[in-house]
Amino acid sequence: MRKLKDLERKEFIRGGKVNDIYATNYPEYLCLDSTNRTTCGNGERMEEFDGKGVANNKISCILFELLEKNGISTHFISKGDNETSKFVKKLDMIPLEVINRRYTAGSFCKRYACDANIPIVPSGVEFCLKNDDLGDPFMPNFAMKALGIATYKEIQFMKETCLKVSDVLSDFFDINGIKLIDFKIEFGKDEDGNILVADEISPDTCRLVDKKTGESLDKDVFREKTGDISSTYAKLLEKIGV
Amino acid sequence: MRKLKDLERKEFIRGGKVNDIYATNYPEYLCLDSTNRTTCGNGERMEEFDGKGVANNKISCILFELLEKNGISTHFISKGDNETSKFVKKLDMIPLEVINRRYTAGSFCKRYACDANIPIVPSGVEFCLKNDDLGDPFMPNFAMKALGIATYKEIQFMKETCLKVSDVLSDFFDINGIKLIDFKIEFGKDEDGNILVADEISPDTCRLVDKKTGESLDKDVFREKTGDISSTYAKLLEKIGV
Repeated sequence: MRKLKDLERKEFIRGGKVNDIYATNYPEYLCLDSTNRTTCGNGERMEEFDGKGVANNKISCILFELLEKNGISTHFISKGDNETSKFVKKLDMIPLEVINRRYTAGSFCKRYACDANIPIVPSGVEFCLKNDDLGDPFMPNFAMKALGIATYKEIQFMKETCLKVSDVLSDFFDINGIKLIDFKIEFGKDEDGNILVADEISPDTCRLVDKKTGESLDKDVFREKTGDISSTYAKLLEKIGV
Repeated sequence: MRKLKDLERKEFIRGGKVNDIYATNYPEYLCLDSTNRTTCGNGERMEEFDGKGVANNKISCILFELLEKNGISTHFISKGDNETSKFVKKLDMIPLEVINRRYTAGSFCKRYACDANIPIVPSGVEFCLKNDDLGDPFMPNFAMKALGIATYKEIQFMKETCLKVSDVLSDFFDINGIKLIDFKIEFGKDEDGNILVADEISPDTCRLVDKKTGESLDKDVFREKTGDISSTYAKLLEKIGV
Protein backbone atom coordinates (compact mmCIF):
# COMPACT_ATOMS: atom_id res chain seq x y z
CA MET A 1 0.00 0.00 0.00
CA ARG A 2 1.61 3.22 -1.20
CA LYS A 3 1.03 6.46 0.69
CA LEU A 4 1.57 9.64 -1.24
CA LYS A 5 1.82 12.55 1.17
CA ASP A 6 1.17 15.21 -1.46
CA LEU A 7 -2.07 13.79 -2.95
CA GLU A 8 -4.65 16.50 -3.52
CA ARG A 9 -8.23 16.35 -4.63
CA LYS A 10 -8.93 18.12 -7.94
CA GLU A 11 -12.02 18.45 -10.16
CA PHE A 12 -15.25 16.46 -9.81
CA ILE A 13 -15.42 13.71 -12.47
CA ARG A 14 -18.77 12.03 -11.91
CA GLY A 15 -21.21 10.79 -9.29
CA GLY A 16 -22.05 7.10 -8.95
CA LYS A 17 -25.14 5.88 -7.12
CA VAL A 18 -23.41 6.31 -3.76
CA ASN A 19 -19.87 7.67 -4.27
CA ASP A 20 -18.65 10.82 -5.99
CA ILE A 21 -15.42 10.56 -7.93
CA TYR A 22 -12.79 13.31 -8.13
CA ALA A 23 -9.52 13.62 -10.01
CA THR A 24 -6.29 14.22 -8.06
CA ASN A 25 -3.01 15.95 -8.86
CA TYR A 26 -1.77 12.54 -10.12
CA PRO A 27 -3.45 11.11 -13.24
CA GLU A 28 -3.15 7.57 -11.87
CA TYR A 29 -5.05 8.29 -8.62
CA LEU A 30 -8.60 9.30 -7.78
CA CYS A 31 -10.39 10.62 -4.73
CA LEU A 32 -13.59 8.70 -3.83
CA ASP A 33 -16.05 10.62 -1.68
CA SER A 34 -18.77 8.63 0.13
CA THR A 35 -22.04 10.57 0.03
CA ASN A 36 -25.04 10.15 2.32
CA ARG A 37 -27.03 8.68 -0.61
CA THR A 38 -28.46 5.22 -0.04
CA THR A 39 -30.14 3.17 -2.75
CA CYS A 40 -31.70 -0.25 -3.06
CA GLY A 41 -33.58 -2.31 -5.62
CA ASN A 42 -31.15 -1.37 -8.42
CA GLY A 43 -31.62 2.32 -7.61
CA GLU A 44 -35.42 2.19 -7.35
CA ARG A 45 -35.38 3.76 -3.85
CA MET A 46 -32.93 6.54 -2.92
CA GLU A 47 -32.66 8.48 0.33
CA GLU A 48 -29.98 10.47 2.15
CA PHE A 49 -28.94 9.88 5.76
CA ASP A 50 -26.82 12.25 7.84
CA GLY A 51 -23.50 10.76 8.84
CA LYS A 52 -23.83 7.74 6.56
CA GLY A 53 -21.02 8.86 4.23
CA VAL A 54 -18.63 9.37 7.16
CA ALA A 55 -19.37 5.96 8.69
CA ASN A 56 -19.23 4.17 5.35
CA ASN A 57 -15.91 5.73 4.39
CA LYS A 58 -14.30 5.04 7.76
CA ILE A 59 -15.45 1.41 7.67
CA SER A 60 -14.33 1.00 4.07
CA CYS A 61 -10.87 2.42 4.92
CA ILE A 62 -10.53 0.06 7.92
CA LEU A 63 -11.48 -2.94 5.75
CA PHE A 64 -9.22 -2.03 2.83
CA GLU A 65 -6.29 -1.56 5.24
CA LEU A 66 -7.14 -4.95 6.73
CA LEU A 67 -7.09 -6.63 3.30
CA GLU A 68 -3.79 -4.96 2.37
CA LYS A 69 -2.25 -6.11 5.68
CA ASN A 70 -3.34 -9.63 4.77
CA GLY A 71 -1.61 -9.51 1.39
CA ILE A 72 -4.64 -8.82 -0.77
CA SER A 73 -3.98 -6.15 -3.39
CA THR A 74 -6.59 -3.40 -3.52
CA HIS A 75 -7.01 0.01 -5.11
CA PHE A 76 -6.70 1.68 -1.67
CA ILE A 77 -3.92 4.21 -1.22
CA SER A 78 -4.83 6.14 1.93
CA LYS A 79 -7.55 7.99 3.77
CA GLY A 80 -8.59 11.12 1.91
CA ASP A 81 -8.61 14.81 2.68
CA ASN A 82 -11.74 14.66 4.85
CA GLU A 83 -13.83 12.14 6.79
CA THR A 84 -15.85 10.97 3.78
CA SER A 85 -13.02 10.39 1.31
CA LYS A 86 -10.20 8.06 0.37
CA PHE A 87 -7.47 8.15 -2.28
CA VAL A 88 -7.42 5.16 -4.60
CA LYS A 89 -5.64 3.90 -7.66
CA LYS A 90 -7.48 4.62 -10.92
CA LEU A 91 -8.38 1.29 -12.49
CA ASP A 92 -10.02 -0.03 -15.59
CA MET A 93 -13.05 -1.53 -13.84
CA ILE A 94 -14.24 -5.04 -14.73
CA PRO A 95 -18.06 -4.78 -15.07
CA LEU A 96 -18.82 -7.55 -12.59
CA GLU A 97 -20.28 -7.78 -9.12
CA VAL A 98 -18.48 -10.62 -7.38
CA ILE A 99 -20.60 -11.96 -4.54
CA ASN A 100 -19.53 -14.27 -1.73
CA ARG A 101 -22.27 -16.07 0.17
CA ARG A 102 -21.55 -17.70 3.55
CA TYR A 103 -25.22 -18.06 4.58
CA THR A 104 -28.39 -17.86 2.48
CA ALA A 105 -29.97 -14.39 2.60
CA GLY A 106 -31.59 -11.60 0.60
CA SER A 107 -31.88 -12.01 -3.17
CA PHE A 108 -30.57 -15.59 -2.93
CA CYS A 109 -33.58 -16.61 -0.81
CA LYS A 110 -36.01 -14.77 -3.09
CA ARG A 111 -34.48 -16.35 -6.21
CA TYR A 112 -34.86 -19.93 -4.96
CA ALA A 113 -37.71 -19.47 -2.46
CA CYS A 114 -35.48 -20.91 0.27
CA ASP A 115 -34.99 -20.19 3.97
CA ALA A 116 -32.50 -17.61 5.15
CA ASN A 117 -29.45 -18.42 7.27
CA ILE A 118 -28.66 -21.85 5.76
CA PRO A 119 -24.84 -22.22 6.01
CA ILE A 120 -23.05 -22.44 2.65
CA VAL A 121 -19.94 -24.53 3.31
CA PRO A 122 -17.55 -23.93 1.66
CA SER A 123 -18.83 -20.45 0.93
CA GLY A 124 -19.83 -19.75 -2.69
CA VAL A 125 -18.80 -17.11 -5.21
CA GLU A 126 -21.15 -15.85 -7.91
CA PHE A 127 -20.48 -13.36 -10.68
CA CYS A 128 -23.11 -10.92 -11.95
CA LEU A 129 -22.85 -8.51 -14.84
CA LYS A 130 -22.86 -4.97 -13.41
CA ASN A 131 -25.69 -3.54 -15.49
CA ASP A 132 -28.76 -2.04 -13.82
CA ASP A 133 -30.76 -1.95 -17.07
CA LEU A 134 -30.35 -5.72 -17.40
CA GLY A 135 -30.94 -6.31 -13.66
CA ASP A 136 -27.33 -7.38 -12.93
CA PRO A 137 -27.82 -10.86 -14.43
CA PHE A 138 -25.88 -13.86 -13.13
CA MET A 139 -22.93 -14.87 -15.36
CA PRO A 140 -21.58 -18.40 -15.65
CA ASN A 141 -17.84 -18.54 -16.40
CA PHE A 142 -18.32 -19.40 -20.07
CA ALA A 143 -20.54 -16.32 -20.54
CA MET A 144 -17.88 -13.99 -19.08
CA LYS A 145 -15.35 -15.59 -21.41
CA ALA A 146 -17.60 -15.57 -24.52
CA LEU A 147 -18.57 -11.91 -24.06
CA GLY A 148 -14.96 -10.82 -23.50
CA ILE A 149 -15.48 -9.70 -19.89
CA ALA A 150 -12.77 -11.91 -18.37
CA THR A 151 -10.52 -14.81 -19.30
CA TYR A 152 -10.78 -18.11 -17.43
CA LYS A 153 -7.49 -17.24 -15.69
CA GLU A 154 -8.86 -13.88 -14.56
CA ILE A 155 -12.11 -15.48 -13.39
CA GLN A 156 -10.14 -18.01 -11.35
CA PHE A 157 -8.03 -15.22 -9.83
CA MET A 158 -11.12 -13.16 -8.89
CA LYS A 159 -12.81 -16.22 -7.39
CA GLU A 160 -9.76 -17.15 -5.30
CA THR A 161 -9.25 -13.54 -4.21
CA CYS A 162 -12.91 -13.23 -3.25
CA LEU A 163 -12.58 -16.35 -1.07
CA LYS A 164 -9.44 -14.90 0.57
CA VAL A 165 -11.33 -11.65 1.22
CA SER A 166 -14.14 -13.73 2.69
CA ASP A 167 -11.76 -15.47 5.11
CA VAL A 168 -10.08 -12.24 6.20
CA LEU A 169 -13.33 -10.30 6.63
CA SER A 170 -15.19 -13.07 8.43
CA ASP A 171 -12.32 -13.63 10.90
CA PHE A 172 -12.14 -9.89 11.56
CA PHE A 173 -15.88 -9.48 12.03
CA ASP A 174 -16.07 -12.64 14.12
CA ILE A 175 -13.60 -11.38 16.75
CA ASN A 176 -15.68 -8.21 16.87
CA GLY A 177 -18.85 -10.15 17.63
CA ILE A 178 -20.28 -9.95 14.13
CA LYS A 179 -21.33 -12.67 11.68
CA LEU A 180 -20.55 -12.07 7.99
CA ILE A 181 -23.49 -13.36 5.91
CA ASP A 182 -22.46 -12.26 2.41
CA PHE A 183 -20.74 -9.41 0.58
CA LYS A 184 -20.10 -7.97 -2.85
CA ILE A 185 -16.79 -6.76 -4.22
CA GLU A 186 -15.65 -5.37 -7.53
CA PHE A 187 -12.36 -5.67 -9.34
CA GLY A 188 -10.39 -3.45 -11.68
CA LYS A 189 -7.15 -3.71 -13.66
CA ASP A 190 -4.18 -1.39 -13.24
CA GLU A 191 -1.96 -0.28 -16.15
CA ASP A 192 0.19 -3.43 -15.73
CA GLY A 193 -2.83 -5.75 -15.99
CA ASN A 194 -2.88 -6.58 -12.25
CA ILE A 195 -6.36 -7.25 -10.93
CA LEU A 196 -7.08 -5.38 -7.69
CA VAL A 197 -10.03 -5.31 -5.30
CA ALA A 198 -11.75 -1.96 -5.89
CA ASP A 199 -14.94 0.01 -5.22
CA GLU A 200 -15.93 -0.01 -1.53
CA ILE A 201 -16.34 -2.59 1.24
CA SER A 202 -18.88 -1.29 3.70
CA PRO A 203 -22.24 -2.08 5.31
CA ASP A 204 -23.69 -1.01 1.93
CA THR A 205 -21.99 -4.02 0.34
CA CYS A 206 -21.76 -6.54 3.22
CA ARG A 207 -24.56 -8.28 5.10
CA LEU A 208 -23.61 -8.35 8.82
CA VAL A 209 -25.41 -9.56 11.92
CA ASP A 210 -24.64 -8.95 15.59
CA LYS A 211 -23.77 -12.41 16.94
CA LYS A 212 -25.38 -11.79 20.34
CA THR A 213 -28.53 -9.90 19.46
CA GLY A 214 -29.13 -11.06 15.86
CA GLU A 215 -29.49 -7.39 14.96
CA SER A 216 -28.81 -6.37 11.36
CA LEU A 217 -25.74 -4.10 11.04
CA ASP A 218 -25.95 -3.23 7.36
CA LYS A 219 -28.10 -1.80 4.56
CA ASP A 220 -30.82 -4.39 5.25
CA VAL A 221 -32.26 -1.93 7.83
CA PHE A 222 -32.90 0.39 4.86
CA ARG A 223 -33.99 -2.36 2.41
CA GLU A 224 -36.39 -3.90 4.92
CA LYS A 225 -37.28 -0.55 6.61
CA THR A 226 -36.49 -2.06 10.01
CA GLY A 227 -34.19 0.57 11.46
CA ASP A 228 -32.23 3.77 11.16
CA ILE A 229 -29.24 3.52 8.85
CA SER A 230 -27.17 6.32 10.45
CA SER A 231 -27.26 4.83 13.95
CA THR A 232 -26.80 1.28 12.57
CA TYR A 233 -23.66 2.22 10.65
CA ALA A 234 -22.37 4.21 13.66
CA LYS A 235 -22.90 1.14 15.84
CA LEU A 236 -20.97 -1.03 13.39
CA LEU A 237 -18.14 1.50 13.24
CA GLU A 238 -17.95 1.52 17.03
CA LYS A 239 -17.76 -2.27 17.14
CA ILE A 240 -14.92 -2.53 14.62
CA GLY A 241 -13.22 0.88 14.92
CA VAL A 242 -9.90 1.09 16.73
CA MET B 1 -30.37 -50.08 -23.79
CA ARG B 2 -32.77 -52.78 -22.65
CA LYS B 3 -35.70 -53.76 -24.85
CA LEU B 4 -38.61 -55.38 -23.14
CA LYS B 5 -40.85 -57.01 -25.71
CA ASP B 6 -43.84 -57.31 -23.42
CA LEU B 7 -44.04 -53.68 -22.24
CA GLU B 8 -47.60 -52.42 -22.23
CA ARG B 9 -49.06 -49.00 -21.57
CA LYS B 10 -51.36 -48.82 -18.54
CA GLU B 11 -53.18 -45.98 -16.77
CA PHE B 12 -52.63 -42.25 -17.34
CA ILE B 13 -50.54 -40.74 -14.51
CA ARG B 14 -50.27 -37.04 -15.36
CA GLY B 15 -49.80 -34.53 -18.14
CA GLY B 16 -46.74 -32.30 -18.29
CA LYS B 17 -46.63 -29.13 -20.36
CA VAL B 18 -45.92 -31.17 -23.50
CA ASN B 19 -45.79 -34.89 -22.67
CA ASP B 20 -48.38 -37.15 -21.09
CA ILE B 21 -47.11 -39.81 -18.72
CA TYR B 22 -48.57 -43.33 -18.42
CA ALA B 23 -47.77 -46.27 -16.19
CA THR B 24 -46.79 -49.61 -17.76
CA ASN B 25 -47.13 -53.22 -16.70
CA TYR B 26 -43.71 -52.85 -15.01
CA PRO B 27 -43.48 -50.47 -12.01
CA GLU B 28 -39.98 -49.38 -13.04
CA TYR B 29 -40.98 -48.24 -16.54
CA LEU B 30 -43.19 -45.49 -17.91
CA CYS B 31 -44.73 -44.66 -21.25
CA LEU B 32 -44.16 -41.05 -22.37
CA ASP B 33 -46.59 -39.77 -24.97
CA SER B 34 -45.65 -36.63 -26.95
CA THR B 35 -48.72 -34.46 -27.43
CA ASN B 36 -49.25 -31.74 -30.04
CA ARG B 37 -49.09 -29.10 -27.28
CA THR B 38 -46.45 -26.41 -27.74
CA THR B 39 -45.60 -23.82 -25.09
CA CYS B 40 -43.17 -20.97 -24.70
CA GLY B 41 -42.37 -18.20 -22.22
CA ASN B 42 -42.63 -20.58 -19.23
CA GLY B 43 -46.05 -21.75 -20.41
CA GLU B 44 -47.43 -18.26 -21.14
CA ARG B 45 -48.37 -19.24 -24.72
CA MET B 46 -49.81 -22.67 -25.57
CA GLU B 47 -51.04 -23.98 -28.93
CA GLU B 48 -51.53 -27.37 -30.53
CA PHE B 49 -50.13 -28.38 -33.92
CA ASP B 50 -51.19 -31.46 -35.91
CA GLY B 51 -48.35 -33.92 -36.35
CA LYS B 52 -46.05 -32.20 -33.88
CA GLY B 53 -46.24 -35.02 -31.32
CA VAL B 54 -45.35 -37.64 -33.94
CA ALA B 55 -42.37 -35.69 -35.27
CA ASN B 56 -41.12 -34.81 -31.79
CA ASN B 57 -41.33 -38.39 -30.55
CA LYS B 58 -39.62 -39.83 -33.63
CA ILE B 59 -36.81 -37.30 -33.38
CA SER B 60 -36.45 -37.85 -29.64
CA CYS B 61 -36.24 -41.65 -30.16
CA ILE B 62 -33.57 -41.23 -32.86
CA LEU B 63 -31.52 -38.95 -30.60
CA PHE B 64 -31.81 -41.15 -27.50
CA GLU B 65 -30.75 -44.18 -29.54
CA LEU B 66 -27.81 -42.14 -30.85
CA LEU B 67 -26.72 -41.23 -27.31
CA GLU B 68 -27.03 -44.83 -26.10
CA LYS B 69 -24.95 -46.02 -29.11
CA ASN B 70 -22.31 -43.52 -28.01
CA GLY B 71 -22.15 -44.88 -24.48
CA ILE B 72 -24.27 -42.21 -22.79
CA SER B 73 -26.77 -43.69 -20.34
CA THR B 74 -30.32 -42.45 -20.77
CA HIS B 75 -33.81 -43.35 -19.57
CA PHE B 76 -34.75 -44.58 -23.04
CA ILE B 77 -35.87 -48.21 -23.35
CA SER B 78 -37.58 -48.42 -26.74
CA LYS B 79 -40.11 -46.87 -29.07
CA GLY B 80 -43.60 -47.04 -27.64
CA ASP B 81 -46.87 -48.59 -28.71
CA ASN B 82 -47.71 -45.88 -31.22
CA GLU B 83 -46.00 -43.10 -33.22
CA THR B 84 -46.13 -40.57 -30.39
CA SER B 85 -44.80 -42.67 -27.53
CA LYS B 86 -41.69 -44.21 -26.05
CA PHE B 87 -41.01 -46.50 -23.10
CA VAL B 88 -38.58 -45.13 -20.55
CA LYS B 89 -37.11 -45.97 -17.18
CA LYS B 90 -38.90 -44.34 -14.26
CA LEU B 91 -36.45 -42.02 -12.53
CA ASP B 92 -36.31 -39.72 -9.57
CA MET B 93 -35.94 -36.51 -11.56
CA ILE B 94 -33.35 -33.91 -10.53
CA PRO B 95 -35.15 -30.53 -10.70
CA LEU B 96 -32.62 -28.89 -13.01
CA GLU B 97 -32.55 -27.75 -16.61
CA VAL B 98 -29.02 -28.36 -17.86
CA ILE B 99 -28.30 -26.13 -20.83
CA ASN B 100 -25.42 -26.38 -23.27
CA ARG B 101 -24.63 -23.31 -25.35
CA ARG B 102 -22.44 -23.56 -28.46
CA TYR B 103 -23.45 -20.17 -29.91
CA THR B 104 -25.17 -17.20 -28.26
CA ALA B 105 -28.93 -17.20 -28.87
CA GLY B 106 -32.35 -16.71 -27.33
CA SER B 107 -32.57 -15.98 -23.61
CA PHE B 108 -28.78 -15.72 -23.37
CA CYS B 109 -28.79 -12.74 -25.78
CA LYS B 110 -31.71 -11.08 -23.99
CA ARG B 111 -30.09 -11.58 -20.58
CA TYR B 112 -26.82 -9.88 -21.58
CA ALA B 113 -28.06 -7.67 -24.45
CA CYS B 114 -25.51 -9.33 -26.72
CA ASP B 115 -25.49 -10.37 -30.39
CA ALA B 116 -26.69 -13.80 -31.45
CA ASN B 117 -24.44 -16.41 -33.07
CA ILE B 118 -21.22 -15.58 -31.20
CA PRO B 119 -19.34 -18.92 -30.92
CA ILE B 120 -18.86 -20.18 -27.37
CA VAL B 121 -15.62 -22.19 -27.43
CA PRO B 122 -15.43 -24.47 -25.56
CA SER B 123 -19.17 -24.70 -25.29
CA GLY B 124 -20.68 -23.77 -21.92
CA VAL B 125 -22.99 -25.59 -19.51
CA GLU B 126 -25.41 -23.74 -17.25
CA PHE B 127 -27.76 -25.14 -14.61
CA CYS B 128 -31.20 -23.66 -13.90
CA LEU B 129 -33.65 -24.66 -11.22
CA LYS B 130 -36.68 -26.22 -12.93
CA ASN B 131 -39.37 -24.06 -11.36
CA ASP B 132 -41.75 -22.04 -13.54
CA ASP B 133 -43.05 -19.98 -10.59
CA LEU B 134 -39.50 -18.78 -9.88
CA GLY B 135 -38.72 -18.31 -13.60
CA ASP B 136 -36.22 -21.20 -13.79
CA PRO B 137 -33.45 -19.21 -12.06
CA PHE B 138 -29.80 -19.84 -12.84
CA MET B 139 -27.98 -21.92 -10.19
CA PRO B 140 -24.28 -21.67 -9.44
CA ASN B 141 -22.74 -24.94 -8.22
CA PHE B 142 -22.63 -23.85 -4.57
CA ALA B 143 -26.36 -23.05 -4.65
CA MET B 144 -27.23 -26.55 -5.93
CA LYS B 145 -25.06 -27.98 -3.18
CA ALA B 146 -26.38 -25.71 -0.39
CA LEU B 147 -30.02 -26.37 -1.29
CA GLY B 148 -29.49 -30.14 -1.46
CA ILE B 149 -30.26 -30.44 -5.19
CA ALA B 150 -26.98 -32.10 -6.17
CA THR B 151 -23.57 -32.88 -4.71
CA TYR B 152 -20.44 -31.45 -6.33
CA LYS B 153 -19.69 -34.93 -7.71
CA GLU B 154 -23.16 -35.17 -9.27
CA ILE B 155 -22.85 -31.65 -10.71
CA GLN B 156 -19.50 -32.56 -12.26
CA PHE B 157 -20.99 -35.75 -13.72
CA MET B 158 -23.97 -33.89 -15.21
CA LYS B 159 -21.68 -31.21 -16.66
CA GLU B 160 -19.35 -33.77 -18.26
CA THR B 161 -22.28 -35.81 -19.56
CA CYS B 162 -23.90 -32.69 -21.01
CA LEU B 163 -20.65 -31.88 -22.85
CA LYS B 164 -20.51 -35.46 -24.21
CA VAL B 165 -24.13 -35.15 -25.36
CA SER B 166 -23.18 -31.85 -27.01
CA ASP B 167 -20.32 -33.49 -28.94
CA VAL B 168 -22.45 -36.44 -30.06
CA LEU B 169 -25.46 -34.34 -31.08
CA SER B 170 -23.46 -31.64 -32.85
CA ASP B 171 -21.48 -34.21 -34.89
CA PHE B 172 -24.71 -35.97 -35.83
CA PHE B 173 -26.53 -32.78 -36.80
CA ASP B 174 -23.47 -31.49 -38.62
CA ILE B 175 -23.27 -34.46 -41.01
CA ASN B 176 -26.98 -33.89 -41.68
CA GLY B 177 -26.38 -30.26 -42.67
CA ILE B 178 -27.59 -28.76 -39.39
CA LYS B 179 -25.86 -26.49 -36.89
CA LEU B 180 -26.56 -27.16 -33.19
CA ILE B 181 -26.83 -23.79 -31.41
CA ASP B 182 -27.87 -24.88 -27.91
CA PHE B 183 -29.99 -27.47 -26.13
CA LYS B 184 -31.50 -28.35 -22.76
CA ILE B 185 -31.46 -31.75 -21.10
CA GLU B 186 -32.66 -33.08 -17.79
CA PHE B 187 -31.31 -35.81 -15.56
CA GLY B 188 -32.85 -38.33 -13.19
CA LYS B 189 -31.57 -40.98 -10.81
CA ASP B 190 -32.44 -44.67 -11.03
CA GLU B 191 -32.93 -46.90 -8.00
CA ASP B 192 -29.16 -47.60 -7.86
CA GLY B 193 -28.30 -43.88 -7.78
CA ASN B 194 -27.07 -43.80 -11.39
CA ILE B 195 -27.69 -40.46 -13.09
CA LEU B 196 -29.24 -40.85 -16.55
CA VAL B 197 -30.20 -38.39 -19.29
CA ALA B 198 -33.99 -38.17 -19.22
CA ASP B 199 -36.96 -36.12 -20.45
CA GLU B 200 -36.87 -35.52 -24.21
CA ILE B 201 -34.34 -34.32 -26.79
CA SER B 202 -36.22 -32.74 -29.64
CA PRO B 203 -36.65 -29.51 -31.60
CA ASP B 204 -38.63 -28.35 -28.55
CA THR B 205 -35.42 -28.53 -26.49
CA CYS B 206 -32.67 -27.94 -29.10
CA ARG B 207 -31.96 -24.85 -31.17
CA LEU B 208 -31.05 -25.96 -34.70
CA VAL B 209 -30.26 -24.09 -37.91
CA ASP B 210 -30.04 -25.35 -41.49
CA LYS B 211 -26.37 -24.80 -42.40
CA LYS B 212 -27.13 -23.88 -46.03
CA THR B 213 -30.25 -21.73 -45.72
CA GLY B 214 -29.88 -20.42 -42.14
CA GLU B 215 -33.48 -21.54 -41.61
CA SER B 216 -34.60 -22.27 -38.06
CA LEU B 217 -35.47 -25.96 -37.54
CA ASP B 218 -36.83 -25.83 -33.99
CA LYS B 219 -39.35 -24.24 -31.64
CA ASP B 220 -38.00 -20.75 -32.45
CA VAL B 221 -40.47 -20.68 -35.38
CA PHE B 222 -43.21 -20.80 -32.71
CA ARG B 223 -41.47 -18.48 -30.22
CA GLU B 224 -40.70 -15.88 -32.89
CA LYS B 225 -43.87 -16.59 -34.93
CA THR B 226 -41.75 -16.96 -38.07
CA GLY B 227 -43.05 -20.25 -39.46
CA ASP B 228 -45.19 -23.33 -39.16
CA ILE B 229 -44.08 -25.74 -36.48
CA SER B 230 -45.57 -28.90 -38.03
CA SER B 231 -43.82 -28.47 -41.37
CA THR B 232 -40.60 -27.32 -39.66
CA TYR B 233 -40.43 -30.40 -37.43
CA ALA B 234 -41.34 -32.65 -40.42
CA LYS B 235 -38.48 -31.08 -42.37
CA LEU B 236 -36.04 -31.74 -39.52
CA LEU B 237 -37.22 -35.33 -39.24
CA GLU B 238 -36.69 -35.82 -42.96
CA LYS B 239 -33.14 -34.44 -42.70
CA ILE B 240 -32.11 -36.75 -39.85
CA GLY B 241 -34.52 -39.68 -40.22
CA VAL B 242 -33.19 -42.93 -41.59
